Amino acid sequence: MEPWQLTAAAAAAKLQDGSLTAEALTRSCLEHCAEREPFTKAFAYLDPMLALANARRVDKAHAKGVLHGLPLGVKDMIDTADMPTSHNSPIYEGLRQGRDAACVGVARGEGAVVFGKTDTVEFAAAGRRALTRNPHDASRTPGGSSSGSAAAVADGMVPLAFGTQTGGSTIRPASFCGVYAMKPTHGVVNSEGAKRYSHTLDTIGWYGRAPADLRLVAQAFRLFGLETPLGKAPGQLRIGLCRGPNWALAAPESQEALLLAGRRLEAAGIAVEELELAAPFKDVTEAQRIVLMGEGRGAFLQEYLAAHGLLHQDFRDRVENADGITAAALVVAYDLAAECRKRFDTLFPRFDAVLTPAAVGEAPVGRQDTGNPVFNSMWTLLHVPCIGIPCTTGPNGLPVGVQIVGPRFGDAALLEVAALVAPAIDAGRAG
Amino acid sequence: MEPWQLTAAAAAAKLQDGSLTAEALTRSCLEHCAEREPFTKAFAYLDPMLALANARRVDKAHAKGVLHGLPLGVKDMIDTADMPTSHNSPIYEGLRQGRDAACVGVARGEGAVVFGKTDTVEFAAAGRRALTRNPHDASRTPGGSSSGSAAAVADGMVPLAFGTQTGGSTIRPASFCGVYAMKPTHGVVNSEGAKRYSHTLDTIGWYGRAPADLRLVAQAFRLFGLETPLGKAPGQLRIGLCRGPNWALAAPESQEALLLAGRRLEAAGIAVEELELAAPFKDVTEAQRIVLMGEGRGAFLQEYLAAHGLLHQDFRDRVENADGITAAALVVAYDLAAECRKRFDTLFPRFDAVLTPAAVGEAPVGRQDTGNPVFNSMWTLLHVPCIGIPCTTGPNGLPVGVQIVGPRFGDAALLEVAALVAPAIDAGRAG
Repeated sequence: MEPWQLTAAAAAAKLQDGSLTAEALTRSCLEHCAEREPFTKAFAYLDPMLALANARRVDKAHAKGVLHGLPLGVKDMIDTADMPTSHNSPIYEGLRQGRDAACVGVARGEGAVVFGKTDTVEFAAAGRRALTRNPHDASRTPGGSSSGSAAAVADGMVPLAFGTQTGGSTIRPASFCGVYAMKPTHGVVNSEGAKRYSHTLDTIGWYGRAPADLRLVAQAFRLFGLETPLGKAPGQLRIGLCRGPNWALAAPESQEALLLAGRRLEAAGIAVEELELAAPFKDVTEAQRIVLMGEGRGAFLQEYLAAHGLLHQDFRDRVENADGITAAALVVAYDLAAECRKRFDTLFPRFDAVLTPAAVGEAPVGRQDTGNPVFNSMWTLLHVPCIGIPCTTGPNGLPVGVQIVGPRFGDAALLEVAALVAPAIDAGRAG
Repeated sequence: MEPWQLTAAAAAAKLQDGSLTAEALTRSCLEHCAEREPFTKAFAYLDPMLALANARRVDKAHAKGVLHGLPLGVKDMIDTADMPTSHNSPIYEGLRQGRDAACVGVARGEGAVVFGKTDTVEFAAAGRRALTRNPHDASRTPGGSSSGSAAAVADGMVPLAFGTQTGGSTIRPASFCGVYAMKPTHGVVNSEGAKRYSHTLDTIGWYGRAPADLRLVAQAFRLFGLETPLGKAPGQLRIGLCRGPNWALAAPESQEALLLAGRRLEAAGIAVEELELAAPFKDVTEAQRIVLMGEGRGAFLQEYLAAHGLLHQDFRDRVENADGITAAALVVAYDLAAECRKRFDTLFPRFDAVLTPAAVGEAPVGRQDTGNPVFNSMWTLLHVPCIGIPCTTGPNGLPVGVQIVGPRFGDAALLEVAALVAPAIDAGRAG
């Protein structure tokens, strides 16, 4: 087995005990990239010498952090002090910031090897798409906007990568690419230094190839509760199977994935109970759109004024409020979200997690349609932690995942649940 | 009258009609700074040649924005592409970012002359204080954390300046320095590129020497409702006079300022009615502290890991959660805030604005104590717009202001109310 094939958790064990160096792992990832990158196009910026220099610096560190030696892809709308950040915008082509985004700084502080910048949808929002292809089928999207991050982890180029989620930009690509992903509780990871779209929604997330990989990053961010494990056995879990208010929009493969995941859990001795989210929850998806468009109005004003001709029409529409979002509608959306956050939390501890679709179906064909975030945007607005888990494949052989969701700040418990349920849910896939 | 003596609105009129150039105004401000800055120490970075170059660039622009030619001070924890941003932290001494913070980009896009960086409390939060002195009494603080911005505007060095408010960092210094200030509805001004402390609380604010000055900046940010004026006469206004849950903490001069403002309004024919904020509001101040400390936990983790020895103990305490904030307490605080936001909004349109204290009293003596934010932090957590209005002087001859508060997104109406009530409230001061 080559080092690049290791999950982050498996590599971390070797890096911690000294049987693998950051440089050797980074070199292995770079060699694999040399082979795969021409097809997958996951990276917007990748300088092998810089990645190796970062690895050697980590190898010389006098203490080992929780991410020690692990190559990390960084979505190209998150600032890095040593690499440009283009936001996939012609306005910021080659832009160099003086300091790392907060999440990158924390990862570096915990020993991660900042490896390269992964391609993204313009400003992680709209406009230009990434060039990235789905590693499972080059004719299809890896999803967006964290296109390159999901694809790079799926394709073995890096064991870990940062994405962001404002609608469904972390969990949906994970489903399309067949990898694990975590969108933590909103606000627990400082999003400073990532391009802002909506302050109520923007959330830093991350990708790995196993639940234990996701946990390493959560440890780096010192998420609440990691120090006090639940310590439950699978047989003590109760999972709420939630089709959700947008079930009718799910393609057959996504409906089947959810039901299959439920059956597999039951077969593994885990209690599964159907859960319906009543009246106010059906309006949360639309509330998310209002918040997104309403807050997007101020998010791109700087670029609108400075470089109007270089700004995609999608963003001019936001600034000009083409959707006609009113302040009154925003207030209603905020207050509905607050009410539903409170209500959703009351489902716990009756349930340990809610199991729900991660995407409409398989990854769409082409580069322009990065998929519909309808199975994600509600959870993003509710601020709750979500973990994407691969489950099955669709009619075209592409991955289809599911996600589990917890209450606000239940990130640590949700990671434990993920570790317990993933072996069942993800059982059908090879590897 | 020298150009530096003009309010932003008065200068803007001359700049728009061509009777004053950006260069002439900037030169006048620089000359005044040369005289005052050695005493006031408002600026962390001021390069006269760069300020003049920025002015000349504006003078050559082919269109005039709403801030055309107006020198602007920028709090030194807000990024500027052409000037370093130190955050008053030894970690970021001389840091140069590749792009402007969003608010600076918008101001530049509307023709503002970025003049210099104003001194701040470390990371606009805690730790090191600004060197700035109160222009009215060099032995006293101008308040914090927007110390230099408030003092620079009060001292005539610039007509406009950006601050931020997470607790009371915009409105309190305005009261201490005898200037006008606005903290808009949370989230309507993109805070990207300003150092993050608390994503729920951090708000960009600004200073001027008249209500019309504040309005110019609001126009630059295209705040909701500016295009549809209320068009009320003073006699049609109804103001709620609110002592608030922390009244007992107000010094006599601050209690007197509020009651005096109320009497002056009534004398001007404006209806004033006492307003009590019942039960849940009394807990909002403590909820703000919980949100601040809880979110502060993640805000400085990057610096904690990268430069532990250069980070002030105040911030290590945040990261190590010295206050022992729990996730459960954070959830309670978020939900209380959401409930009180909704309730506060219901006071409108019964009232046109709520009149309430802006600070505990006069500016404290010394540089270390920048004043208590207890009369601001509730409003910050409620996300509502606040406008600080000078009112009177205290026992030591220092300014004491009040503030008016509106419902969420009522920024435009609140600016109109400010223009109507300020001549009465601010009547006692010379000039």
